[in-house]
Amino acid sequence: MSCKVVLAQGISASYREELKSTIKTRNICPKLVGFLANEDPAAAKYAEWTAKTCAETGVEFELRKCSRNDLEDKIIEANQDAGVNGIMVYYPVFGDRQDQYLQNVVDVSKDVEGLHHKYVYNMYHNIRFLDEAKTKKCIIPCTPLGLVKVMEYVGVYNGILPHGNRLHGRVVTIINRSEIVGRPLAALLANDGAKVYSVDINGIQEFHRGVGLQLKKHEVSETSLTVEEVLPLSDVVITGVPSPSYKVPSHLIRDGAVCINFSTFKNFDGEEIKKKAAIYVPAVGKVTVAMLERNLVRLYDYQAQDRAPSTA
Amino acid sequence: MSCKVVLAQGISASYREELKSTIKTRNICPKLVGFLANEDPAAAKYAEWTAKTCAETGVEFELRKCSRNDLEDKIIEANQDAGVNGIMVYYPVFGDRQDQYLQNVVDVSKDVEGLHHKYVYNMYHNIRFLDEAKTKKCIIPCTPLGLVKVMEYVGVYNGILPHGNRLHGRVVTIINRSEIVGRPLAALLANDGAKVYSVDINGIQEFHRGVGLQLKKHEVSETSLTVEEVLPLSDVVITGVPSPSYKVPSHLIRDGAVCINFSTFKNFDGEEIKKKAAIYVPAVGKVTVAMLERNLVRLYDYQAQDRAPSTA
Repeated sequence: MSCKVVLAQGISASYREELKSTIKTRNICPKLVGFLANEDPAAAKYAEWTAKTCAETGVEFELRKCSRNDLEDKIIEANQDAGVNGIMVYYPVFGDRQDQYLQNVVDVSKDVEGLHHKYVYNMYHNIRFLDEAKTKKCIIPCTPLGLVKVMEYVGVYNGILPHGNRLHGRVVTIINRSEIVGRPLAALLANDGAKVYSVDINGIQEFHRGVGLQLKKHEVSETSLTVEEVLPLSDVVITGVPSPSYKVPSHLIRDGAVCINFSTFKNFDGEEIKKKAAIYVPAVGKVTVAMLERNLVRLYDYQAQDRAPSTA
Repeated sequence: MSCKVVLAQGISASYREELKSTIKTRNICPKLVGFLANEDPAAAKYAEWTAKTCAETGVEFELRKCSRNDLEDKIIEANQDAGVNGIMVYYPVFGDRQDQYLQNVVDVSKDVEGLHHKYVYNMYHNIRFLDEAKTKKCIIPCTPLGLVKVMEYVGVYNGILPHGNRLHGRVVTIINRSEIVGRPLAALLANDGAKVYSVDINGIQEFHRGVGLQLKKHEVSETSLTVEEVLPLSDVVITGVPSPSYKVPSHLIRDGAVCINFSTFKNFDGEEIKKKAAIYVPAVGKVTVAMLERNLVRLYDYQAQDRAPSTA
């Protein structure tokens, strides 16, 4: 079989090495605080895993457990503590709109997950810097950012095209339109030039900057297309369906496609997909954690920049 | 407009620099003889241009003019002259099957153009080395090889896939099925994993190694497809139509396609194509000449290898 299976371990290796070396060379110790305010064993597992990875890289990670009703006060306390460089919360906490409220309680300058409204707004509007002088890049949500890095690694981004246009000509289907991953990812990829079919239970939307990338940012349009129609057109298929029973129909995948799964469940049939895909990435978790740490170091530097006396 | 126009000058630069440096560092002076036996002003022009490029690189180029009836004897003379490392002929000479006969008169060990039956056979059968020990790579015809290098340069080849499979998933239309360029190119690209639609005046053939690249070499099948059907499916469109009036219909080109012209005439409408293509390569001549010189240095080394006393 000609399919190349690419593991997250290998994709994240260079990012982990770079982080490790930056932290060691500059002799810094950025601190990340994670808040666990639910009883979800998956969240506890993820926290454990984050702690392990941070220890390897040289990041100080502190897990703070609290009740969900104390969480807002605890976040504010961490916002005000100059010793804390990054804050993350293991969602879901309330599982409703209050979670979105909490995302905006985390101070912009400490939001390693890039979930604050300012970052989300900038991402959807293709605004890539926080300041006019373009010295501070916006923080991008870890999982979508990790998926972009996976796509760079497996050669979907074309390095000969200018930054921001490197997906021009690529057709991507994303099966998941959550606010945390699927929708921001569709926006990121369309802003980089792809035509994206965003699939959820209610139908398929198209995210695109138009023929010849005539628009500066993507537009979203409703389509009447079906999964049966968009899969055979897609160079790349990305799935994140949180169900053990869901499988992408392999026979619809274009020969030589790139297939990426970010669900904790295997959304592709491992054997069947290898008969069609050129590249298959079965999981991306390790890349996501590397992006979390990368965002942390970036925020650490912005904070130092803001504390430094102005040279103006 | 977001289209990136890529010029042959830039694509060939690294090959020219590498050749120059190899020739200088190793203090060698490979000699190329070109035979001009027609009255075609385009051939004379090409010969002049080859001479100029060779002088810049450090290759000794000698143009030998003769009548077409003397050509065979002249080639045999050059075959036997140890001071000549490479031989090329400016075709057409007779413009019929006799030209193909002449291609096989040029000794395999001096055929810089890769037109000898042995090279052509190996190319179609995806045999990449001349010897079992795999120390001598086969010579590939200059223009098809140049087009492969163009496609590598502009990111159509995916470097993360293994050599020989790097076009898996790419759909390519080639408008030209000459024995010198179009057909060998279709075979090369299909052997590297692409699905190729080869278009000529009689119809469209498909060159492909099958779903999941299940075949070791490509197979050719007749289709009843039309240009109107294959262009919108194609990631890459390559044209070599020797007519000033022919233009590829831009409206059929897939948004974000890679468009490459190797005809001496402009087969794409320069303005219209830039509204659709992500990458447009208007000409490839300089890359072809660089490949000619690269083949020459390779043959120079094989000849030295064959002259050296055996260590066995």
